[in-house]
Amino acid sequence: MSASFEDIIAQVKALPVKKLSVCVAQDKNVLEACRVALDRGVASPILYGDEDKIRAIADENGISLDGMKICDEKNDDEAALKAVKAVHDGEADMLMKGELPTKSFLKSVLNKEVGLRTGKTLSHVCIFEIPKYKRLLFLTDVAFLPYPTLEDKEQIINYTVKVANACGVKMPKVAPLAAVEVVNPKMPVTVEAAQLTQWNEEGRIKGCIVDGPLSMDLALEPEAAQHKEGALNRKIVGDADILLFPDIHAGNLVYKTIVHMVDNVENGNILMGTKAPVVLTSRSDSVEVKVNSIAVAAVVAENLKSNPW
Amino acid sequence: MSASFEDIIAQVKALPVKKLSVCVAQDKNVLEACRVALDRGVASPILYGDEDKIRAIADENGISLDGMKICDEKNDDEAALKAVKAVHDGEADMLMKGELPTKSFLKSVLNKEVGLRTGKTLSHVCIFEIPKYKRLLFLTDVAFLPYPTLEDKEQIINYTVKVANACGVKMPKVAPLAAVEVVNPKMPVTVEAAQLTQWNEEGRIKGCIVDGPLSMDLALEPEAAQHKEGALNRKIVGDADILLFPDIHAGNLVYKTIVHMVDNVENGNILMGTKAPVVLTSRSDSVEVKVNSIAVAAVVAENLKSNPW
Repeated sequence: MSASFEDIIAQVKALPVKKLSVCVAQDKNVLEACRVALDRGVASPILYGDEDKIRAIADENGISLDGMKICDEKNDDEAALKAVKAVHDGEADMLMKGELPTKSFLKSVLNKEVGLRTGKTLSHVCIFEIPKYKRLLFLTDVAFLPYPTLEDKEQIINYTVKVANACGVKMPKVAPLAAVEVVNPKMPVTVEAAQLTQWNEEGRIKGCIVDGPLSMDLALEPEAAQHKEGALNRKIVGDADILLFPDIHAGNLVYKTIVHMVDNVENGNILMGTKAPVVLTSRSDSVEVKVNSIAVAAVVAENLKSNPW
Repeated sequence: MSASFEDIIAQVKALPVKKLSVCVAQDKNVLEACRVALDRGVASPILYGDEDKIRAIADENGISLDGMKICDEKNDDEAALKAVKAVHDGEADMLMKGELPTKSFLKSVLNKEVGLRTGKTLSHVCIFEIPKYKRLLFLTDVAFLPYPTLEDKEQIINYTVKVANACGVKMPKVAPLAAVEVVNPKMPVTVEAAQLTQWNEEGRIKGCIVDGPLSMDLALEPEAAQHKEGALNRKIVGDADILLFPDIHAGNLVYKTIVHMVDNVENGNILMGTKAPVVLTSRSDSVEVKVNSIAVAAVVAENLKSNPW
């Protein structure tokens, strides 16, 4: 079972090298991440974008482009479409956003002819490695889908279970979170959490153990289960793998609390529901976060070959 | 400006001693907190409850009851009512929940004849001292009011500003939080956040600086403001004092993430909207949390004398 990004990267190295198609690659941070990914055997980058700008940024920052293929295209939208098409056509295994707005990037990803649509809801999973917590933690959705419906949540669980499986977590424990751990009809999110749990018990949601509604302490802290009545009979007692959030506000606020307040945290993230894995990191994400995300995309790409969405 | 619970306790010591009326005091943790509060000059406890049980628990655990008044009442509901009435009649300055269910406790607090109702919405504020963050952080509402309306949020801000003032924070910065820092009509919480900001600019919400919607990174992390376009022109750039949450799920999940994942955190909390401050800690809260909460109640009690809700 992988418990760190180092474990995931070790897993990736044992696989055939995955090709990473980069949309509009003229960005220092993106080029650095590509260099590290190539050097560490995480991926083989193909850079779509303005070759002059790419080479200038690489020179300025002492980033070697040795071993990377560059496909020159000055127009950003065209470069994005070509990068997406490479994945669509199977010339690359996964896609990464470079120096273009998220909206333009997604427009290319969802292009009807050369894009990566599956007709399914797109959603985002964030993976954390937190020293205090003994396992990888998968959070969803903290960045993409604002108000998932009950059906969206079922889909999101399925996606995240696949990502967890790809990262080596075999039968993940899924905690549909709320402020409380009991169903309260005045709190719709607790009713939905109970429904998801029932669907899991009935075999409709497979490959995982769902137990909700669950409060954050019961999801993460084994000791908390000792203090609360009935908590020790739950399926999750401080050992959740996947945290399913009520909505994007709860998810994003927790995500950023962890990033900014918890020491020595590592993270990575991936967009789900597309034909091939998509790395959708933001400008402010570090090189490390980008490399971690590429590693996750690589194990997911391998996994999708035998188990499409 | 207070930046720690030690500062608040130092403030309390300089005030006339506040009397703390304890509802159903027969609980080890509660008695320990009362002992520490008395020894540290934070409050003078009056224990309502079953005197035999109180003395037995104190004996068993080596807790001295010297200097505490005990009012013997075997019936829990009666003990709760008598404890509340003592505050109602001005014989005590603040109230604390002991060994009885929250529902029964609140029933007494809201009793029409001897209770502490003001006719206003009740709400909860949680105060954190976090080593990484240079100031006290006030979170609301993470535990009591599930889905505050826009008007509730206005009221909650007013309450929390009073608590912050009492703790020595003169002109607190209030961040109405969301997943994003711009208004998006598809996310009602961002529209409400903008309205609260406007009410503050128009002088309807006073004594504080409101700036929302705000994401968690811009609220807490000065560096994040450097990376985001337009963020440096905001009124809050990583220096929020008060975090206003969209709803109880977002608030509670963040609150418990901080408690369980961030090292060396201290916290305390208080119920607002009653005639006198109410300490509503839960069974699982440590003695330290209870003492911190009593200290906050004491400074708020002093403040309410000159500035009622």
